[in-house]
Amino acid sequence: MSEDAYVIGLDYGTDSVRSVLVNAMTGEELTNVVFEYPRWKAGKYCDPAVNRFRQHPLDYMEGLEYTVRESIRQAGTGIAEKIRAIAVDTTGSTPVAVDSAGIPLALNKGFEENPNAMFVLWKDHTAVQEAGEINQHARSWGGIDYTQYEGGIYSSEWFWAKILHVLREDKDIRQAAYSWVEHCDWIPALLTGVRDVHDIKRGRCAAGHKAMWHESWGGLPSEEFLVKLDPLLAGLRDRLFSETYTSDVSAGQLSPEWASRLGLKPEVAVSVGAFDAHMGAVGGGSKPFYLTKIVGTSTCDVVTAPMDKFGNKFIQGICGQVDGSVVPGMLGMEAGQSAFGDIYAWFKQVLMYPVERIVGSSDLLSSDIKTRLIDETAGRLIPELTRAAEQVPIDESGIVAVDWMNGRRTPDANQMLKGAVTGLNLGSDAPKIFRALVEATAFGARKIMDRFIDEGVPIEGVIALGGIPKKSPFVMQVLADVLNRPILVTRSEQACALGAAMFAAAAAKLYPDVDAAQAAMSSGFEHEYHPDPGNAKKYQRLYEKYSRLGEFIEKETSS
Amino acid sequence: MSEDAYVIGLDYGTDSVRSVLVNAMTGEELTNVVFEYPRWKAGKYCDPAVNRFRQHPLDYMEGLEYTVRESIRQAGTGIAEKIRAIAVDTTGSTPVAVDSAGIPLALNKGFEENPNAMFVLWKDHTAVQEAGEINQHARSWGGIDYTQYEGGIYSSEWFWAKILHVLREDKDIRQAAYSWVEHCDWIPALLTGVRDVHDIKRGRCAAGHKAMWHESWGGLPSEEFLVKLDPLLAGLRDRLFSETYTSDVSAGQLSPEWASRLGLKPEVAVSVGAFDAHMGAVGGGSKPFYLTKIVGTSTCDVVTAPMDKFGNKFIQGICGQVDGSVVPGMLGMEAGQSAFGDIYAWFKQVLMYPVERIVGSSDLLSSDIKTRLIDETAGRLIPELTRAAEQVPIDESGIVAVDWMNGRRTPDANQMLKGAVTGLNLGSDAPKIFRALVEATAFGARKIMDRFIDEGVPIEGVIALGGIPKKSPFVMQVLADVLNRPILVTRSEQACALGAAMFAAAAAKLYPDVDAAQAAMSSGFEHEYHPDPGNAKKYQRLYEKYSRLGEFIEKETSS
Repeated sequence: MSEDAYVIGLDYGTDSVRSVLVNAMTGEELTNVVFEYPRWKAGKYCDPAVNRFRQHPLDYMEGLEYTVRESIRQAGTGIAEKIRAIAVDTTGSTPVAVDSAGIPLALNKGFEENPNAMFVLWKDHTAVQEAGEINQHARSWGGIDYTQYEGGIYSSEWFWAKILHVLREDKDIRQAAYSWVEHCDWIPALLTGVRDVHDIKRGRCAAGHKAMWHESWGGLPSEEFLVKLDPLLAGLRDRLFSETYTSDVSAGQLSPEWASRLGLKPEVAVSVGAFDAHMGAVGGGSKPFYLTKIVGTSTCDVVTAPMDKFGNKFIQGICGQVDGSVVPGMLGMEAGQSAFGDIYAWFKQVLMYPVERIVGSSDLLSSDIKTRLIDETAGRLIPELTRAAEQVPIDESGIVAVDWMNGRRTPDANQMLKGAVTGLNLGSDAPKIFRALVEATAFGARKIMDRFIDEGVPIEGVIALGGIPKKSPFVMQVLADVLNRPILVTRSEQACALGAAMFAAAAAKLYPDVDAAQAAMSSGFEHEYHPDPGNAKKYQRLYEKYSRLGEFIEKETSS
Repeated sequence: MSEDAYVIGLDYGTDSVRSVLVNAMTGEELTNVVFEYPRWKAGKYCDPAVNRFRQHPLDYMEGLEYTVRESIRQAGTGIAEKIRAIAVDTTGSTPVAVDSAGIPLALNKGFEENPNAMFVLWKDHTAVQEAGEINQHARSWGGIDYTQYEGGIYSSEWFWAKILHVLREDKDIRQAAYSWVEHCDWIPALLTGVRDVHDIKRGRCAAGHKAMWHESWGGLPSEEFLVKLDPLLAGLRDRLFSETYTSDVSAGQLSPEWASRLGLKPEVAVSVGAFDAHMGAVGGGSKPFYLTKIVGTSTCDVVTAPMDKFGNKFIQGICGQVDGSVVPGMLGMEAGQSAFGDIYAWFKQVLMYPVERIVGSSDLLSSDIKTRLIDETAGRLIPELTRAAEQVPIDESGIVAVDWMNGRRTPDANQMLKGAVTGLNLGSDAPKIFRALVEATAFGARKIMDRFIDEGVPIEGVIALGGIPKKSPFVMQVLADVLNRPILVTRSEQACALGAAMFAAAAAKLYPDVDAAQAAMSSGFEHEYHPDPGNAKKYQRLYEKYSRLGEFIEKETSS
C-alpha cells in the first residue's frame, strides 16, 4: 500500500449513526460525524409501555447520507477520491420485513406509518411469547435443538421471535412481506444497489448469533421445524438465505445512485455488515483468547479462538458461538451482563427520589431553580458516590450485592433472576452500598471469565472499551482486582466505527486480511489497570460470598 | 375507694423524664410534664464514638423535682394533698456505682465529673468484651448457666457486664464503690430516704431480666461463678441483694426531705421500681397471653402467663422470663426486635445522601434555603414514601427484605446478623423498597409471635403502643395482615407513665392488686386493625421467602 487510502466506518447505534473517516494506513481518525435519528428522537412508532421499539428506514438513510457527506466535507479536498471502502456495523438483532426487491415495507406505499413495516430494534420485547414458544419447541420437537449455539435460550430480542410476532399480529405485513433482513445486512444491500432480496449477502455474525444459522445443519433451521413452530412460517426459509459471509468480504461496489448521493467514486467497496460489538471488539484491539469487554449500560464480552482447535467444542452457558462472527477463521464467542452501568443508574434513580419528589415540589424554590437543582444533583451524584466509595476499605462494610437487576444473560441465561443487597446494617450509607454494587458488577464479570476458563477456553488477557472504561478508573480498578488480571483500555473513542473501518480496509484488499488491517490501524491502548494482590485476595473471599448468595437466589427463583 | 385519690407515674426515658398525675379512680391523666436532662442534652460525659453513654444523677433529681412540682401546680389547688402514691419506671439496665449509703458516687466529692461514677445508660456498649467473657464463662465454668432465663446470651447493655467493665477500667471507682444500683431502684430509695444500701428494695424486673437473679439458684449468681469470672467481683454479691420485689409493693413512704421538696405529704407511698416497657405493657392494657408490643425505633414485646402453669417452662430464644417482672404472680416474658422504626430511619438516611451532599453544597442556593430545604425533605420523606408505598400491590414488586440491620434480638439473639434486600430489578424504586422494609419489620414481628406459639405460649391477642402504632396506619395494617391477627392500639399517649400510676395505686392499696388497678384506670384502645384475609394469604407466601432468606443469612454468618 504505497498510496494514501481512506476508509469509512459506519456505526449504527440505538439513538444515532456515526461516520468515522479513517486513514487506512495508520488508523488515524480524520473525522467523526454523528446524526441522531429524527423520527426516533420524536418517539415515533414506539410504545415503551409494551417495550415496542421500532425505527424507520428513512432515519437510517438520512443519517447515512448526512454523516458520510459531512465527513468528506470536514476532511477537506482531495480525500473523497481516496476513499476505498465502507463498512457498516449496527445494533441487532434488528430485522425488517422487505419485499422481493429487498426494500423495507415502510418505504413502500401504504406502509409508511406502520411500525410493523419498520426495523424491530434490538431492545423491542414484544415477542416474549414467541421466544418462549421457540424455546419450548426447540426442546420438544424431536429434532436438533437449533438454539444450542446461541446459548440454548432463544431471546425475544432475536430474529425469528420478532418475525413470528409481527406475522401473527399484522395481516398486511403477512401479505406484503416477501422476506426479512437484518439492519446490518440491509445497509450494504442499499449501498450496493441490490434489486433482488436473494442477492443480499447476509452477514455470518447476525445469522449465526440470532437466526440459528449453523453450517452443521445446513444453514437456517429446517422447514419442518419452522412449520411445526407455526404454519405462518411456511416457505419463508427459502425466501431468506442459506449462505452467509464474514465481513472481510466485499458485498459489492457502491451503486451509481449512492456513489452520487454520498459524493464517492462507484469503485468504493462495501463490506458485508456485522453487529456493533463484534466489529467493536476488532476495533478495540481484540486478540485470540483475549476477553474483550464492551462495558456500558450492559456488557458485551467477546472471545475469539481458532476454529481448527475450538470449532467443534460446545461452550456451555454463553450467549453464542459462531464461526467467523468476529474474525474470519476464528470461533467468535459472545457473552455479556444484562446490566452493568444500568445498575449504577438504577441506584442513582432510587436516591433521586427525595430530590425529584420533595425538593422538586418545595415551595421554597422557583420552578427554574428546581429544574436546575435536580439536573445538578443528577449530574453530580455518581461522581460524588464514586469519590466517597473509593474511601471505603474493601470488605469493611460487609455489604455483598448480586448484579442481576436486569436478569442474567451469562453465564447460563436466566431472565427471571433478580438482584440483591445483603450485609446491611444501620451504618450502611449510600457510598458503601454503591461500592458493593460496583463490586457486584465486577463479580458478574468474573463469573463470565471463569466460565470461559472452566469450559477450556484460556483467557490470556482482558481488554475493555466503551463508556465506563473511559470514565471510571474506580470501576476499572475494582474490575482488575476482582478479575485478578491486568486490563487494557482501548484508546479509540469509537472502537466500533474503527473496527468497521478495519473490515472496510480488508474488503478493499488494502490488507491481506482483517488481522493485518487491525495490526496496522489499531489505536492501541491508553491505559493498563493492574490488580493489587492484596485487594485480589480480599475480593476472592467476597466473590465466594457473592457466589453463594447467587446460588441461593437461583434456588429461590426456581422454587 | 370512696374519696378522690390521685397517683403520680414517673417515666424516666433516654432523653427526658415525664410526670403524669392521674386520677386513681378513673385513670384520667390530669397533667403531663416533661423535663429534658440538661447535662445529657449538652452531650456531657458521653462519647458516641465508643458508644459510651452516661447520665448524671443530678439530671434525674432535678427532673424529679421539677416535673412533680409542675404537675401539682398545673393540677391546681386541692390536688396535692390527695396524692397517695408515686411509682417510677426507667430505662435499663442503667446501673450506677454507690457508696454504702446507697448514694451514687457522682454525688460524692471528687467524683462529680467522673463518667464512671454516673449511671451507665442502657445503650452504653463499652462492655462488649465483658459481655463476651460472661457468655463464655457461663457455658464453660462447669456450673449453672446463669444466662438461661435471660435468653441465653448476656448483653453488653446489662448489669454485670457494665459493673465489670467499670471496675476494670477505673481504680478510683474500684476503691470507692461499695455496691451498685439500677436507676429504677435508686429513685424509690432516694424518695424514701434510704441511708443504707442494704435497705434498698430491689425490683424483680431489673434483677431478673438483667442481673441473672433467679429464685431457683437462690438469687444472684454464686460467689464462685463471679470470682472465677474476675476476682475483682469478690465480695460484691453480698453487698448487692438477695431479695427482690414486684412493683405492687411499697418501698416505703416519702422521706420528710423529699415530701417537702416535692410539695407532697410524707404519707405518700413509693412503689418498687421497674423498667419502662414492663410498666408500659400494664399501662397499655396487657392481659395474660396477649402479646403487647411497644413499637418505636426498636420493639419490646411482652407476654404474661400464670406462674402456676408456666413458671417452670423454659421458653427458648426470647430475651428473658421472670416471675412477676410485669405483673405479680405472672411469668413476665420479654422479646423484641433490635430495629423497627430505625430501619425506616436508616433508609431515609440513605436516600438523604444526594440532598445533604449535593443540594446541601449547591451554589444555586443560599445557606439559609439549603438548611430549610434539607429540613423540609427530611421531614416529608417518610410520609411521602408511605403514601407511595401504600399504592404498591402486595407481592407485585417481588422485593423481599430481612430486618436485621441492627442484628436480631429475638427469636434467638444474634447480633452478628445483618439485613438484606432481595428481588431487586431496574424498576425497584424507593417506595417499593420502603414497602419491602415495612413488610420485613412485620415479618420479624411474626417470627417472635410464632416462637411464643411454638414454645407452647398461646397468643390470644395483640396490643400495640408507642410512636409507630399512633403515627402509621400503613405500618399497622401491614403488621395486622402479616400477623393475621387483629391489633388493638392503646389510647394513652403515655402508657409507661400510666402503667407506673397503676402500680402506685396498687402500692397505696387503693386497689387489691395491679389487675384491679389496670381494669379501673386503663384508657382503653383507640383503634383495632383487622387483617385482610386476602392480604394475609399473600403475605404467608412472602413470609416463607423471608424465612428462607433469613436461614441463608444465618448460615452465611456462621460460616
